[in-house]
Amino acid sequence: MTHIDKTSRIPLYLQLMDILINKMENEMGENEQLPSEREICQQYDLSRTTVRQAINELEKDGYIYKVHGKGTFVSPKKVNQELVKFYSFTEEMKKLGKVPISKVLSFDVLEADRKTSNKLLVADGSKVYCFSRLRIADDIPMMLETSFVPYDLFPGITKEDLEHTALYELFRNRFQTEITMAEELFMPVLTNMKEAKLLKMPPSLPSLRIERLTHGVDRVIEYTNTIARGDKFKYHVRLEN
Amino acid sequence: MTHIDKTSRIPLYLQLMDILINKMENEMGENEQLPSEREICQQYDLSRTTVRQAINELEKDGYIYKVHGKGTFVSPKKVNQELVKFYSFTEEMKKLGKVPISKVLSFDVLEADRKTSNKLLVADGSKVYCFSRLRIADDIPMMLETSFVPYDLFPGITKEDLEHTALYELFRNRFQTEITMAEELFMPVLTNMKEAKLLKMPPSLPSLRIERLTHGVDRVIEYTNTIARGDKFKYHVRLEN
Repeated sequence: MTHIDKTSRIPLYLQLMDILINKMENEMGENEQLPSEREICQQYDLSRTTVRQAINELEKDGYIYKVHGKGTFVSPKKVNQELVKFYSFTEEMKKLGKVPISKVLSFDVLEADRKTSNKLLVADGSKVYCFSRLRIADDIPMMLETSFVPYDLFPGITKEDLEHTALYELFRNRFQTEITMAEELFMPVLTNMKEAKLLKMPPSLPSLRIERLTHGVDRVIEYTNTIARGDKFKYHVRLEN
Repeated sequence: MTHIDKTSRIPLYLQLMDILINKMENEMGENEQLPSEREICQQYDLSRTTVRQAINELEKDGYIYKVHGKGTFVSPKKVNQELVKFYSFTEEMKKLGKVPISKVLSFDVLEADRKTSNKLLVADGSKVYCFSRLRIADDIPMMLETSFVPYDLFPGITKEDLEHTALYELFRNRFQTEITMAEELFMPVLTNMKEAKLLKMPPSLPSLRIERLTHGVDRVIEYTNTIARGDKFKYHVRLEN
């Protein structure tokens, strides 16, 4: 559809959304500014209410974003993460030609509390690493991760290691530990103020919480809670019958 | 952990969360009321700030929910949807011993707009069914779905059909059309007022938008946009290395 059909049974705002999506996908670039509401009203001979409804839906669907006092802009495309086989943030970002870095926000060796020991299948009170990392791609904060890793399997990891080496590379190269599989649990969440600030996003934007359990040959080797920015990622899965 | 250790490096609110989660999972039932903040402060000798932080985090993580003027309650467990093979709402709810029903909110035969025809891989303007269904399990609204289905493959489906028969049963039994696979795309969203009202949830609760493309032998047979309540579902995937 390239023009509004006022005789159609399809609501006008849906028709307008269709036209604008088409324009953004074929003629406009990421972060390019959209015409103002007033201009869109005039161009398509539509009411302010209709245009506003279309714009609001496009914003909610993540196609566009608003900057207060500046206008409305085309959202950058989301990273499409395939949920087929085991993936790592570092590898996925490199594949997309982005430069991934990890900022280690905290790094501790603790005694596992009940929740953590239940997840890692270690004894209550076992020594575990607990670290938080901000995952950044091309200077944009993408994910916030809090990980728990059994100390006995990987002794002597330092904060500096994590800053310079991908975790799974450390597992593989320094400790000869291969990953066999991972389980992930996906839940939508709102970030709290602290998370939102670190991720440089408004706290009202919905995001995904991903709980990952990574398995080695005979042990759980990692339990990670990730907040993945909802405006940066979409997750794709293929379900065979 | 069953008591607060004030000498531990683990923040007090995290310790309290751990204790409360353990209590809820082992000693309390769904929708059971938690003690008041004041009572929790006294029981564990903690400050109001610490207790409030733990309660807020538990609410954000979906373990508990608040009812204005009444108190705080244990959330019902989320449905754990395995993303392994093709699934249907009707079948999944039956497996859990719940009674699934579908309320058909709208039912139309339309000409496909560009977005829909792109998804269904049909010509622009082809006849398609467009219907919205509220999916309910044991009287609780769980999902809101808007589906597009090519008319030519499945002529003569009525609103009443959809109210009494699962869509995939219709495809299989009346039209001898087998599903080969489906693709799903997961994105976190906030529901709008209308969606929230239909789903009987606060609009500020994050939910999942799931875009499904269902494939038959040689055609796309369904394109559905689902809003799945974030407080009712979690999605589990297993990733082999």
